[in-house]
Amino acid sequence: MEHSFAFDTWFALLLQYAWVESLSENYRPFGEIADATLKMTAEKLDRKITQSEIKFLLSIIKTLPPHGDEIEGMAKLKEVDIPMVALTNGSLDVANAQMEFSGLIKFLERVFSVEEVGYFKPHPSRYLYVLKEMGYSAKDTMLVACHPWDLLGAKRAGLQTCLIKREGVPDYPYSEPFDLEVHNLKEVPKNFKN
Amino acid sequence: MEHSFAFDTWFALLLQYAWVESLSENYRPFGEIADATLKMTAEKLDRKITQSEIKFLLSIIKTLPPHGDEIEGMAKLKEVDIPMVALTNGSLDVANAQMEFSGLIKFLERVFSVEEVGYFKPHPSRYLYVLKEMGYSAKDTMLVACHPWDLLGAKRAGLQTCLIKREGVPDYPYSEPFDLEVHNLKEVPKNFKN
Repeated sequence: MEHSFAFDTWFALLLQYAWVESLSENYRPFGEIADATLKMTAEKLDRKITQSEIKFLLSIIKTLPPHGDEIEGMAKLKEVDIPMVALTNGSLDVANAQMEFSGLIKFLERVFSVEEVGYFKPHPSRYLYVLKEMGYSAKDTMLVACHPWDLLGAKRAGLQTCLIKREGVPDYPYSEPFDLEVHNLKEVPKNFKN
Repeated sequence: MEHSFAFDTWFALLLQYAWVESLSENYRPFGEIADATLKMTAEKLDRKITQSEIKFLLSIIKTLPPHGDEIEGMAKLKEVDIPMVALTNGSLDVANAQMEFSGLIKFLERVFSVEEVGYFKPHPSRYLYVLKEMGYSAKDTMLVACHPWDLLGAKRAGLQTCLIKREGVPDYPYSEPFDLEVHNLKEVPKNFKN
């Protein structure tokens, strides 16, 4: 409970300050905001945290295990020639490390980070940049994600959306309608025709 | 602890989704997002919440007691002819009710809500709109606030800033420098010359 509370407090602050930076028309790497908001979380919970503890905590993110449904789901999408890219608010090196560790890198045409654009998702420029770089049209591209705020941004940028409903991620009642809603990535491919 | 945890979870989600709306270039009243994120908080904490409970919780905000230093601080600023306005991300009717209840309304030239602009603070347009409406110059205007994200937005819009350091509100390490930093509003007036 206590660890989960600390994590939730931190992650909420991390998203908040990423969006504060974008909304006030500034850019700062996600990793720096992650570092800063870990310190804020420690202050809020009246704890001390050292720079080496912060470094350790942030390194864990690179070796998070996948949920378990991604490999089968993405392999099936690859079989029917659906090109896939990853798009993260984090840094390119962390995202690449995550995709390497999880074994998902082989399914991806490219991993995109916010670094190239300077606005965090859900700013529309984030999604539109990927479309332009890849030569995809918005209406033929689908964002598959578990966070309502990410899907809302993609929909407002003109993309199709698929919600993967994960436990502990509540619905936002004012989400834009999802084109598809599933419980895991294995359910996505059967909704695509060859 | 549990109530504080629920409140923190809710308030974090409320700020997040306000900023998600602005960043995805949409507008939705703060009250609606407050309602929506209360439901999300209940779902996250595995509780049920009724619409009448939500209505009751949101009505409490109108009768929050002031910290206690505002009346003396603002009276002194008024004495030396410093014009003051309030600027909220919330709705005009809630902000007016809060200012009436707390007795602060008599010190204010005007109460501004985000409703007129459609972007939430810390978007620069929020601060610049107030300056334009009041005929104030940015460099001669100071935002006095306790949230680092609000001060950061005002500073980036060109205003002066004063942090009121309240307990439980951690510093953001990448804040823009504050022109003034105090522990309560009573300390502000002595920093102004007639």
